[in-house]
Amino acid sequence: MAEADQSKESLQESLQQVIHLLSKHQLVENLVHKQDMPRHALVESLVHKQNLVGLQKKLDTLHPADVAYILESLPLDQRLLVWDLVKAERDGEILLEVSDAVRQSLIADMDSEELLAAAEQLDTDEIADLAPDLPKDVFQELLESLDSQNRERLQSALSYPEDTVGALMDFDVVTIRDDITLDVVLRYLRRLGKLPNHTDKLFVVDRADSLRGVLPLKRLLVNDPDNSVASAIADDTVIFHAEDKASEAAAAFERYDLVTAPVVDANNRLVGRLTVDEVMDFIRKESESEMLSMAGLREEEDLFASVWKSVQNRWTWLAINLVTAFLASRVIGVFEGSIEKIVALAALMPIVAGIGGNSGNQTITMIVRGLALGQISSHNMKTLFYKELGVSFLNGLVWGTVLGCVAFMLYSNMMLGVVMMAAMTLNLLLAAIVGVGIPLIMSKMGRDPALGSSVMITAVTDSGGFFIFLGLATLFLI
Amino acid sequence: MAEADQSKESLQESLQQVIHLLSKHQLVENLVHKQDMPRHALVESLVHKQNLVGLQKKLDTLHPADVAYILESLPLDQRLLVWDLVKAERDGEILLEVSDAVRQSLIADMDSEELLAAAEQLDTDEIADLAPDLPKDVFQELLESLDSQNRERLQSALSYPEDTVGALMDFDVVTIRDDITLDVVLRYLRRLGKLPNHTDKLFVVDRADSLRGVLPLKRLLVNDPDNSVASAIADDTVIFHAEDKASEAAAAFERYDLVTAPVVDANNRLVGRLTVDEVMDFIRKESESEMLSMAGLREEEDLFASVWKSVQNRWTWLAINLVTAFLASRVIGVFEGSIEKIVALAALMPIVAGIGGNSGNQTITMIVRGLALGQISSHNMKTLFYKELGVSFLNGLVWGTVLGCVAFMLYSNMMLGVVMMAAMTLNLLLAAIVGVGIPLIMSKMGRDPALGSSVMITAVTDSGGFFIFLGLATLFLI
Repeated sequence: MAEADQSKESLQESLQQVIHLLSKHQLVENLVHKQDMPRHALVESLVHKQNLVGLQKKLDTLHPADVAYILESLPLDQRLLVWDLVKAERDGEILLEVSDAVRQSLIADMDSEELLAAAEQLDTDEIADLAPDLPKDVFQELLESLDSQNRERLQSALSYPEDTVGALMDFDVVTIRDDITLDVVLRYLRRLGKLPNHTDKLFVVDRADSLRGVLPLKRLLVNDPDNSVASAIADDTVIFHAEDKASEAAAAFERYDLVTAPVVDANNRLVGRLTVDEVMDFIRKESESEMLSMAGLREEEDLFASVWKSVQNRWTWLAINLVTAFLASRVIGVFEGSIEKIVALAALMPIVAGIGGNSGNQTITMIVRGLALGQISSHNMKTLFYKELGVSFLNGLVWGTVLGCVAFMLYSNMMLGVVMMAAMTLNLLLAAIVGVGIPLIMSKMGRDPALGSSVMITAVTDSGGFFIFLGLATLFLI
Repeated sequence: MAEADQSKESLQESLQQVIHLLSKHQLVENLVHKQDMPRHALVESLVHKQNLVGLQKKLDTLHPADVAYILESLPLDQRLLVWDLVKAERDGEILLEVSDAVRQSLIADMDSEELLAAAEQLDTDEIADLAPDLPKDVFQELLESLDSQNRERLQSALSYPEDTVGALMDFDVVTIRDDITLDVVLRYLRRLGKLPNHTDKLFVVDRADSLRGVLPLKRLLVNDPDNSVASAIADDTVIFHAEDKASEAAAAFERYDLVTAPVVDANNRLVGRLTVDEVMDFIRKESESEMLSMAGLREEEDLFASVWKSVQNRWTWLAINLVTAFLASRVIGVFEGSIEKIVALAALMPIVAGIGGNSGNQTITMIVRGLALGQISSHNMKTLFYKELGVSFLNGLVWGTVLGCVAFMLYSNMMLGVVMMAAMTLNLLLAAIVGVGIPLIMSKMGRDPALGSSVMITAVTDSGGFFIFLGLATLFLI
């Protein structure tokens, strides 16, 4: 495992080392504060300094992405201590790597000059990623410090909504003409001396910067250098527009196994490129936010956010849940008379509601996923719908019968068992209908189908389950 | 959008066209079956054939990944019809692209010869991906048809567990020695005539096939051809071992923005390479299975699986849920006496349980995500734990007071309101403890922390909520 030095295992080790050095430092701090020994103060401050120097040395050896990981894994006070030790010239890169929530906590700790210095180390497309989190005056100053081409680029990058290709693309394109030979291209690249990261193809443009095609490096390398660019150009290129949806571009990257792809404007003019690393980050973020929003978390939350911030993040859906739980409670309230007569109903009703919620959650998870993958549309909705109804009906009959028997045995009431079975089946059917319906309606309305879906389905299966069970009981048992 | 022909939007169009052609075909089928007009039979069979030819033509223009997408989006009967129309020589590639569940449905429709022909079009590492789904006799025959090098490779690829680097790697490595000049490398590549997909670096090995380093194509292109390979070699390479965990390799790909990386054995001998497209597929699958398993779905389910298959997939967690719901019901059963005296308890108790479940789900989702990202370990568990307790305490006080007031107003019983508030707060604290505890314990035990987490947290907050609320009510109200 010697060379897996950069993989996660030893990243954990790096984290442990950082924490060890931090705790040593903390120890000395505590000594200095708790005891009042001015004579030893000098020695301690030396030890203290030594620990910090050790920590700083350790941090300097780490990749910016690894420092970002360590910052994200530390509680706020330790995080800021480590952040202060990071060399200023790496601030920009690291800010790019951390999650939005952690970035805000770091930026809040920096003054205007530090922020400006950090931003100035970055490419234009990277500054655009950082811009929303920067204080206005810092951003204004930054804008003024850029040359006109980069200022224009920054403004155009910022003009695209967050979920478009324009917001993900960078400007590191190497362009060539198609009327030269491959040998000329090879010499041109040597003169350039450096190629942008992830370059797997060169972009072939005409005088007006219109995209003609791409020259994969693979073809450049295996073809005769005397051949022209035109003869080696690839014609099956996937091309994106800056306004295209990022999620669709990501799907195309996955489907066609792309490393980079050109981005053009409405006039087919090359404006930038999309790279697989940005796409991968995007996919990761998308799937995370889907998971979080199903559980009713508003957005990516810093693990070590303050209690107050976390409360705010979770407030909305808890409040909605409170309202739905209250409604379910009122449904029961309507049947209080029946419960007074047969108190067993109170004990059995949560089973009907609970199984419905679980089954509904399974259905809604399937549908949300199918929608995210674009596999569901009007043509197959019906098939899906009937399938889910079938699954629920079968589950309802089987488990309903089991529970009906249990209810019969517990309370020696045959009819109670039958009501239990019928209520289970009906509530599972309701769960299927709503589990398919909610995400489809949300997506038709242009909303995120994952958003709070878990809370909504539970609301329906709770109120519905109580109503069906207590209603049937009132009809047939009272 | 002319060139976004391969992106999702027009993929949807392709799907629509396929469905249109399928429905035309279906129409003719129905005519033939329903009416008995032998005179027209000939004409109809012609129209019928024409529709299928149109469909086949359409399919031939599509990328294998797009055909896979269409197959996944079609109900089983239509899926098999389309599958029969796909040119046999593309079978292998398409089988690789579809999801496991859909692959099984396609393979079930093929005979041994077709399967053998499909597998023979593939690279060894691709055959390894397919192997678990192949019938034993087909696999045996396939193994015998391979030459000894490829047979060895296939057997070694199959020997690695599914979640290791060895299972994801391929064998398409281009190797060079370090004592030659870059010019010799350039001439060697031209003689090769073709480079494997995603090649962004060549692997530098010694006579014993030991990995010395890598030569990025970028460096090959920008450096003087008279320089030696040794002078241009990259030394900061990320190297994986075949036994390394795939999830850790994926994290490294994301962190260091890799396109390919070498895989070595215990003796540093180069055995294969990992590419970003495989890693991206892996990440997608991981995040999906996390989402599905949180909801208690056993595995990736074919959207159009038969009702019976779906029931089996969801059976386990529903059964577990049934047991937990029964336990919660028994908790209520203990307090039936109290409910008989104050029937309002029956109406209020699901609120306490429900809000606890929602809050617990939020906590557990955060923790599962933090664990998946490797951000949680023993050093910060305490901080996290106290934070979640703080959030729950605050939420419990605020929402508990609100609901306490509501309960007081509804039932004009001051003490009932106080009990409501206390029960809410305690149940939210329980939700926090269990929401942090369950995934941590699961992960300590080496289990997937996401697995059925949603069902388990709800079980605890239901039983716990009923017990706390009815218990307090019995103590202070009866």
